[in-house]
Amino acid sequence: MATLKSTTPQLEELKTRVTEIYDINAAVSVLYWDQSTYMPSGGAGARGRQMALLRQIAHQKLTDPSLGKLLADLQTQEKTWDYSSPEASLIRLTYRNYQRAIQVPGDFVAQFSAHRSRCYEAWAKAKEEDNFALVQAELEKNLDFTRQYANFFSGYDHIADPLIEEVDYGMTTATLRPLFAQLRKELVPLVEAISSCPPLDVSCVQQGFDRQKQLQFTLNLLRQVGYDFYRGRQDESLHPFTTSFSIGDVRITTRVRENDLTEALFSTIHEMGHAFYEQGLDRTLEGTPLAEGTSAGVHESQSRLWENLVGRSPEFWQYFYPQLQEMFPEELKPVSLDTFYRAINRVERSLIRTDADEVTYNLHVMIRFDLELELLEGSLEVRDLPDAWNARYQSDLGVCPPSDRLGVLQDVHWYTSTLGAMFQCYTLGNIMSAQIYQAALQDLPHLKDNIAQGDFAPLQNWLIDHIYQFGSVYTPLELMQNVTGSDLKITPFLDYIQQKYRQLYDF
Amino acid sequence: MATLKSTTPQLEELKTRVTEIYDINAAVSVLYWDQSTYMPSGGAGARGRQMALLRQIAHQKLTDPSLGKLLADLQTQEKTWDYSSPEASLIRLTYRNYQRAIQVPGDFVAQFSAHRSRCYEAWAKAKEEDNFALVQAELEKNLDFTRQYANFFSGYDHIADPLIEEVDYGMTTATLRPLFAQLRKELVPLVEAISSCPPLDVSCVQQGFDRQKQLQFTLNLLRQVGYDFYRGRQDESLHPFTTSFSIGDVRITTRVRENDLTEALFSTIHEMGHAFYEQGLDRTLEGTPLAEGTSAGVHESQSRLWENLVGRSPEFWQYFYPQLQEMFPEELKPVSLDTFYRAINRVERSLIRTDADEVTYNLHVMIRFDLELELLEGSLEVRDLPDAWNARYQSDLGVCPPSDRLGVLQDVHWYTSTLGAMFQCYTLGNIMSAQIYQAALQDLPHLKDNIAQGDFAPLQNWLIDHIYQFGSVYTPLELMQNVTGSDLKITPFLDYIQQKYRQLYDF
Repeated sequence: MATLKSTTPQLEELKTRVTEIYDINAAVSVLYWDQSTYMPSGGAGARGRQMALLRQIAHQKLTDPSLGKLLADLQTQEKTWDYSSPEASLIRLTYRNYQRAIQVPGDFVAQFSAHRSRCYEAWAKAKEEDNFALVQAELEKNLDFTRQYANFFSGYDHIADPLIEEVDYGMTTATLRPLFAQLRKELVPLVEAISSCPPLDVSCVQQGFDRQKQLQFTLNLLRQVGYDFYRGRQDESLHPFTTSFSIGDVRITTRVRENDLTEALFSTIHEMGHAFYEQGLDRTLEGTPLAEGTSAGVHESQSRLWENLVGRSPEFWQYFYPQLQEMFPEELKPVSLDTFYRAINRVERSLIRTDADEVTYNLHVMIRFDLELELLEGSLEVRDLPDAWNARYQSDLGVCPPSDRLGVLQDVHWYTSTLGAMFQCYTLGNIMSAQIYQAALQDLPHLKDNIAQGDFAPLQNWLIDHIYQFGSVYTPLELMQNVTGSDLKITPFLDYIQQKYRQLYDF
Repeated sequence: MATLKSTTPQLEELKTRVTEIYDINAAVSVLYWDQSTYMPSGGAGARGRQMALLRQIAHQKLTDPSLGKLLADLQTQEKTWDYSSPEASLIRLTYRNYQRAIQVPGDFVAQFSAHRSRCYEAWAKAKEEDNFALVQAELEKNLDFTRQYANFFSGYDHIADPLIEEVDYGMTTATLRPLFAQLRKELVPLVEAISSCPPLDVSCVQQGFDRQKQLQFTLNLLRQVGYDFYRGRQDESLHPFTTSFSIGDVRITTRVRENDLTEALFSTIHEMGHAFYEQGLDRTLEGTPLAEGTSAGVHESQSRLWENLVGRSPEFWQYFYPQLQEMFPEELKPVSLDTFYRAINRVERSLIRTDADEVTYNLHVMIRFDLELELLEGSLEVRDLPDAWNARYQSDLGVCPPSDRLGVLQDVHWYTSTLGAMFQCYTLGNIMSAQIYQAALQDLPHLKDNIAQGDFAPLQNWLIDHIYQFGSVYTPLELMQNVTGSDLKITPFLDYIQQKYRQLYDF
């Protein structure tokens, strides 16, 4: 990829301005990372205030009319460069971000931000006390704020569209609904078929595993797969996440459960996939809005590609399982690779999305996506949400949450952000991951052998060449075309799932 | 102390504005803390850029002409409140900060900040390669920047005065020079007398001590003395420091040497003293410039009070030594309390300030203070600094640094901040600490018994009542008057030192 060169004074000024915005957002991310890892409880109050202020300053800088003027001037120069050049891309993306930001009044940003902190607090309490009623009023306000927010963007077909577009550019309710409906139609009977088979035995990963050894194993794994510790680190947090303060500092967190080895393993591999994307960006994009994954869905495709397509494959554990046995000889020496492989791929109709296997996972997501749309449309009231949630779990997954904590209160998303368009990226990521991996397998015929031998460089380099380096230069749909030669499609995902699980469950 | 009440709309606006500045500075502190504790190396470049930007934004907000207008309006209201009320204090201190800040052009702030990063990098390299020449040019520029900076403040008697005033309000070269000269006159012969005595045996604290156990002991100690972990934490860093992001989040760092137990012990107790000051602030000052220690010297007095007056006293170890023996039975069970007490109080003419005992420490500081003044006056050239340094070490301490690394390159201060007025606070702190502790002992006749019994609450509460809660409400000199009923004086320090060390060295 060509280097980002400053060939006009206006472009130089644009770079200076976007880097300021980038750096303020990076500071917010440091504050958030600290809050999630090491901050003592007493710091919470001031921290919320500090993050809100920095977000407000970033918003002010992005909506500065003089930036609008500069961008208008630069529009005339944009055609000087190729569409995919960093220069044209920077102008195009900044203009898009500017146009979005100026629709939203600064006061609204601050009010909504403050409300989200309140709603988060109420959710935490409601979840602790297992009582949705404690957060209902705040969630209703959140829905109200979300509707107001969406309505700042005129000319949409569906009220969720501006929300979806913000995180998954180019996607709309109209394109996602049929895609998801088709996926659901295929998945429900598949899950039913699997559920009628004898369950796989997971006891080998649910023994007691020493916490420190688990962490040590994940660090060894990260190092061998290629996570760059010179430009990153792993810590523990309540909810695993990836965050980036620059291309030189991309951090992940993980979570350990002493009685379930899969938690630390797969949360680490998942976040590693996100981090590879950010560590693999072209360095010349540093400090610009191009220096991040192009959408929530594409980002998720990278975490899921590594977590599932690679991390739950037989070849991956062919390489790593001996090391895992070495780390836990007492627990795993008696357990065969095949038994372990089956245990980490057990399919189960369960209540919790983040614990779900790769077959049922999308059913969890689609329940949320549909409920979000109904809330936004007004066909579902917040007070009826727990019942609607439970009914959908019963119909789609055949299980009914015995409590709000294991039901509608399980995920933080709706309570701390816009209430809508928060979940589609997960299923988009799953769909894309399989489509992308299929393309990688075509280009790299020895890929599975490489992985079995612990050689992850071919795949990583292929992903850098085809996806990572470009950051946000291409839209998600452009990227999928470039990488796979086709539009987004669900068949690679379904083929992968069908093939893998028919074999595993023998039906 | 009375609560900070908002009794006028202007005062309300002032609070909003100062809290924004406070919060941006707090964000800088989080970024710095992270840089010093957990940041991977790859993050350094962007981190410097991000901190510089936030500092610039804070400076812009502090120098906003509309703040000047607001403060002018508030001047007329200031007399509505008592001098020491939070309201009057807030107006007074913000006005003082504003008046200072507007003397300095924003461009200069950014250029100086950028230069300091370069100078720091050059220093790190020069120190690593033990070669002053590698940083000489950058240090010359730093001196030049410092002179320019000082010259923004007109009407001074000595060029160092505006620099001293910035960190130790109310102090000048004219007041400090005679004070320091008198102190030096007393200390040099005392050190000579001690040096002619047989040295105390330090071998008991220079065995091998397990790193993790050392950290565990310092955590136990912090908890028992009263450091509030709900509002703080301790981590490791290359250079120990205290930092505060709010009254609810005051963190310290420590440094462990496996072959020297005193490093972790006394860096912990030192930083704990700083942290007590920040944790002991009246909560209603949160988010204002009043919410920090009133000067560098007074801050240092609190770290030194705990580190030396308390932490190197026999009564302190009467309580803690059995616990220390418990933690290191093999190393310390055979060592008596008296032997340990003597080891942690050994006086030695040495090369490194941060390793110095409480008798020689001020000689290290005064060498630096004098050299700073000569550099600023122009009577000493930067290129001659290493020789001047070595000559003074020879004459004052009777030792000559064999290398720049152990000489003029040992401290980071001159290479990363203004070159001048960086060191006087340490000796001011020592002087004040003894004067304050004398007052505490007068008010609390059972204090030493309390400490011997592990009851630190009486001292802590006395310090909260007399010093901590007020933050920056009083100037350092006002505070000393309030607390001790007298001006700053060196006799309590000298009396303390004479008495303690005559006894220890038996002369």
